[in-house]
Amino acid sequence: MDLRALIMAGGIGTRFWPLSRKQRPKQFLPILSHKTMLEETVARLLPRLQPEHILTIADERLTQIIRTFLPELPAENTLIEPEARNTAPCLLLATAHLYLENPEAVLAVLPADHSIQDTDLFMQRILAGAEAAATGNRLVTFGIPPTYPATGYGYIRFDLTSSARFQNSSFYSVREFKEKPDPDMAQKFCEAGTYYWNSGMFLWQARVFARQIEKFAPELHAHWDALLDAVSRRDPALICEVYSRLPATSIDYALMEKSQGVLMGEGDFGWSDVGSWSALSEFWPADEQGNAVRGKYVFIESRNCLVYSPKKLTALIGVQDLIVVETDDALLICPKDQDQKVKDLVASLRKKGKDEYL
Amino acid sequence: MDLRALIMAGGIGTRFWPLSRKQRPKQFLPILSHKTMLEETVARLLPRLQPEHILTIADERLTQIIRTFLPELPAENTLIEPEARNTAPCLLLATAHLYLENPEAVLAVLPADHSIQDTDLFMQRILAGAEAAATGNRLVTFGIPPTYPATGYGYIRFDLTSSARFQNSSFYSVREFKEKPDPDMAQKFCEAGTYYWNSGMFLWQARVFARQIEKFAPELHAHWDALLDAVSRRDPALICEVYSRLPATSIDYALMEKSQGVLMGEGDFGWSDVGSWSALSEFWPADEQGNAVRGKYVFIESRNCLVYSPKKLTALIGVQDLIVVETDDALLICPKDQDQKVKDLVASLRKKGKDEYL
Repeated sequence: MDLRALIMAGGIGTRFWPLSRKQRPKQFLPILSHKTMLEETVARLLPRLQPEHILTIADERLTQIIRTFLPELPAENTLIEPEARNTAPCLLLATAHLYLENPEAVLAVLPADHSIQDTDLFMQRILAGAEAAATGNRLVTFGIPPTYPATGYGYIRFDLTSSARFQNSSFYSVREFKEKPDPDMAQKFCEAGTYYWNSGMFLWQARVFARQIEKFAPELHAHWDALLDAVSRRDPALICEVYSRLPATSIDYALMEKSQGVLMGEGDFGWSDVGSWSALSEFWPADEQGNAVRGKYVFIESRNCLVYSPKKLTALIGVQDLIVVETDDALLICPKDQDQKVKDLVASLRKKGKDEYL
Repeated sequence: MDLRALIMAGGIGTRFWPLSRKQRPKQFLPILSHKTMLEETVARLLPRLQPEHILTIADERLTQIIRTFLPELPAENTLIEPEARNTAPCLLLATAHLYLENPEAVLAVLPADHSIQDTDLFMQRILAGAEAAATGNRLVTFGIPPTYPATGYGYIRFDLTSSARFQNSSFYSVREFKEKPDPDMAQKFCEAGTYYWNSGMFLWQARVFARQIEKFAPELHAHWDALLDAVSRRDPALICEVYSRLPATSIDYALMEKSQGVLMGEGDFGWSDVGSWSALSEFWPADEQGNAVRGKYVFIESRNCLVYSPKKLTALIGVQDLIVVETDDALLICPKDQDQKVKDLVASLRKKGKDEYL
């Protein structure tokens, strides 16, 4: 089995502002441990994959930082996304690279900024998914058993009665991809037991992917040969030219939702997309008052706060459930239950032309 | 009239931590304007007093910073308080200096860290008080008409029927000095109309002061001649030696409360002791949401906050009535109505031996 991993490292991660910046998005931050999320993503794979079989993709401005954090990967494994056109063009390009090397190879598409608790189980599931992807003309995805009625994720409806086993892991036939639901719908999805969160993790064989887009995504397939040609010539200008004509859409919309026979593996390995500051409360150790702090501190009558202030002493008096983040040029203070507004704040900075803070 | 001013510049001002520090207490902070409170105190006097008639007193470690901020004052006007022994020894020493120069001179004792709104009226009241002090064997103090039932100040009970006029200003006979009251008592004081806040501002003639301590404060007077002798010899070691034997107590307790015939002037010039961070809300201009900010900021749904963060962008989301103070090595976050606990926090830092933050 020729398994390769593609780490999607181009995310912007505005929800971790002011720590995450244009030049240093979330995946390059050591917010879960002393390692960056990108390094952790690679570390999960290394016991089973050779460094030369791990690829990353992101726009050019992030190339240098990726290579700095992943010196063990060959430089040519850092693929460049010519422009931001959503996930479909990006994955078409990455799969074209793989196809030219070995059409039989299986690609595992993995986000660079997710947390996985049980890394052994994760690799077991990925290897099983790779087998599932290699043994049938089908795409494989991973669904996460929901732990609460989330409205921030898409859902995958699957057929519980259609279980297939690969290497002791269960896979189910996908019935339908669902957009982010409203709260009532999310509640129903959760109770049904046949809706899992769409994790954004996929597996496919290069050859199968080519066949699948031919059948289900003709607007992608229309550029496939031109893209293969450009990649085989190693001609960046030509790649950019073809890329600019690809439909700017997601792989879910362009292919996954339309494909037939998609299999969903069970993502039961303790997944989290660590979507915002308050999510870190689950990962950082807390003191007896529930305060999770990176940095020196002295608190009076303060509870359940999350503080990132590694360079100075933070003194809190009489506050609860507050997020405090201090960087060299900015300071954020926000109640935990309002941290989804951090991205509005970043949007407002952008609108005001305060680019130095983006 | 030989009027001199003594600016008491030795205060610690822990309530403005983390901006106020041992090496830079409140009076050396530009928290009301672009000038420090000490500079503002001197600026109020300069239209009527020569620089050589303005003295300061503080402990030795503050000497350098005082001279830096007040280069217009002769260096010898920076008196040194040999050790912290409360206000009585400090004022005995300063008055001894003055007595040796001119026993007829009148000393106006003024804190370095108060705010005065109407500086013209203030000088008018001080000059009237100086005349009152020069024309009778009595001490003069200033009382502030209370604007709310404060429990943080001492009160002066006076006799409304005993009005005397000096230079168009009213003075009243003091009946009693009252310690800081409980809330009920404060309410009664406020309603009575014959209780003013004790401002800590005094006026006395050097000669009268000597006579007053002889009569009402024998435990101070016991060291008066020794102190005069030490000061006249300009012998720092001898001054320290005498000073160490003086009773460590306040001038209110040692003399003012015991003296007879004390006159109280009306401190109707817009006084504030700017006692804590939240007091600054009255002095800093606020935006439409009531936020008073020193520094760049972007706020979402935040009201009535006070932010001092001159070096970085402060982003607040969904918070109200919060104090945020950012310095080079510390960050304070505290609701406005709990800012009296800032001094507890400083005490806790001291107890933990975190001297670098004091």
